[in-house]
Amino acid sequence: MIQKLIAGIKRTEAPIVVGLDPMLSYIPEHITEKAYAAYGETLQGAGEAVWQYNKGIVDAVCDLVPAVKPQIAMYEQFGIEGLIAFEKTVRYCKEKGLVVIGDIKRGDIGSTSEAYATGHLGSVRVGSREYRGFDEDFVTVNPYLGSDGVMPFIRVCQKEKKGLFILVKTSNPSSGEFQDRPVRDGSAASSDRPLYELVGEQVARWGETCMGDSYSYIGAVVGATYPETGKALRRIMPKSYILVPGYGAQGGKGADLVHFFNEDGLGAIINSSRGIIAAYQQEKYASYGSTGYADAARAAVLDMKADIASALAKR
Amino acid sequence: MIQKLIAGIKRTEAPIVVGLDPMLSYIPEHITEKAYAAYGETLQGAGEAVWQYNKGIVDAVCDLVPAVKPQIAMYEQFGIEGLIAFEKTVRYCKEKGLVVIGDIKRGDIGSTSEAYATGHLGSVRVGSREYRGFDEDFVTVNPYLGSDGVMPFIRVCQKEKKGLFILVKTSNPSSGEFQDRPVRDGSAASSDRPLYELVGEQVARWGETCMGDSYSYIGAVVGATYPETGKALRRIMPKSYILVPGYGAQGGKGADLVHFFNEDGLGAIINSSRGIIAAYQQEKYASYGSTGYADAARAAVLDMKADIASALAKR
Repeated sequence: MIQKLIAGIKRTEAPIVVGLDPMLSYIPEHITEKAYAAYGETLQGAGEAVWQYNKGIVDAVCDLVPAVKPQIAMYEQFGIEGLIAFEKTVRYCKEKGLVVIGDIKRGDIGSTSEAYATGHLGSVRVGSREYRGFDEDFVTVNPYLGSDGVMPFIRVCQKEKKGLFILVKTSNPSSGEFQDRPVRDGSAASSDRPLYELVGEQVARWGETCMGDSYSYIGAVVGATYPETGKALRRIMPKSYILVPGYGAQGGKGADLVHFFNEDGLGAIINSSRGIIAAYQQEKYASYGSTGYADAARAAVLDMKADIASALAKR
Repeated sequence: MIQKLIAGIKRTEAPIVVGLDPMLSYIPEHITEKAYAAYGETLQGAGEAVWQYNKGIVDAVCDLVPAVKPQIAMYEQFGIEGLIAFEKTVRYCKEKGLVVIGDIKRGDIGSTSEAYATGHLGSVRVGSREYRGFDEDFVTVNPYLGSDGVMPFIRVCQKEKKGLFILVKTSNPSSGEFQDRPVRDGSAASSDRPLYELVGEQVARWGETCMGDSYSYIGAVVGATYPETGKALRRIMPKSYILVPGYGAQGGKGADLVHFFNEDGLGAIINSSRGIIAAYQQEKYASYGSTGYADAARAAVLDMKADIASALAKR
């Protein structure tokens, strides 16, 4: 699947993943009204609105980008009906040829991580039959529990030819509270280093045995909001694809991103969520109006693509 | 909700939470056969089997324990149908008067954590109406993203009078890989301390502003498999309830648990999952047979209660 992702990035010339993180406040009235008319102001109505909204965006951008990243929390907030919209979104994006990164940030002890990996990447046996649950192509994983919490995900990826992005340094303001802590390294001679570097080294080690062609299918998450950190982690994990959240609404700009890429122009994929899917709510794209929300999303993708290309050309 | 939990522990004299972590391999044939006869060997059939199995256990133990802890991964592995079984289980346990701890180990950046907190503890607005998603009483939270990933959960708990158990030191063999790393503390004079102690201190700080009567509703998860660590963390977080996984099948024994309790005999609640819900598969409870799986679970709870009481009496 990492090969499919890289081929898609080359084909579209856009190292961009569109974050499908729908809040009801982003969804144009013409969509919510239709959904509520059919199902009432219910969780089912909300799920339908989310799904129709996503479908419009996916149709408008699927030729421009290689991948989407639905954030499952935004669906889980509506309970079962939200998760049905998540499942429909994953399936539809795959039909459209997009790589689907499930942003689920799961991570637990061994047998439990195995169950998550089964539900999101693999298949489960029921009697004599096998079924797939949510069936994303990649998922994000939280490393706090260590190797035996991550290995079950890796084993399912090996079997299914899928992949992971493991949280190393997240994009939020307080990510440094634990992730930046100076940690003693074992060897007495070496100086202390931030925890995220140790996690990054472990990601590189996990990734070494999971190679596609030139990149591993075990990647990392490193926030765009910490460009200097990105520079250090790029060196530490040369063969890991880095999924970079935090562009746009969270404050990251194209110029911050250049260090996340390798010399080959590959190695990073930049996520933008609100900045694309709710572009019509920004002054810059207001002329599209709410009925033109999908075209506004398309315009925002094209602008983001140009911003990144221009930053990469200047380096 | 922490008061309800403590009152339940006092009433039952059992600081025990039953982990409802169903694997299909635990479920007796008479249950799976009936479910498959009704729904086929499908995800729906699996969901029905899980739900009927849980119901039998809950009916057999609900007068003996104050709380249950369904591990959502075990349901998520069956996709939507599994999550429907999760939702039914949560609702049924609450009807039976049990406190429900959703073992979800979520954690993300601010707005995303808010969506998880909404879906699992709070309510979501759809048009002019409000709905509850999964509606557990407590959930477990992963702290790797720092304060702004945890605070949205705390805010929902404050509003809803619910609570959290935040991962500090997990029960799995490789939990030390990152959690035990010696971390520099800021003050030059102090020596390095393991990361889990810093996380524990932060849990204590978060908890101070969230007090029930004598205990905070912001608790911690500390594995039974690391008794010495439990001793240190008990001191660091005197007012935090500690949820202790790892008893039984993972290797923890009653004698390992005494340091997790305060002098008042409170402050800890011990989880056992497989050791109770699949007790009939152990030699010790084999005489119950698979049709007596619920009675075997009841016997295992009584034995666990006696083991803990005897260990506490000896300290």
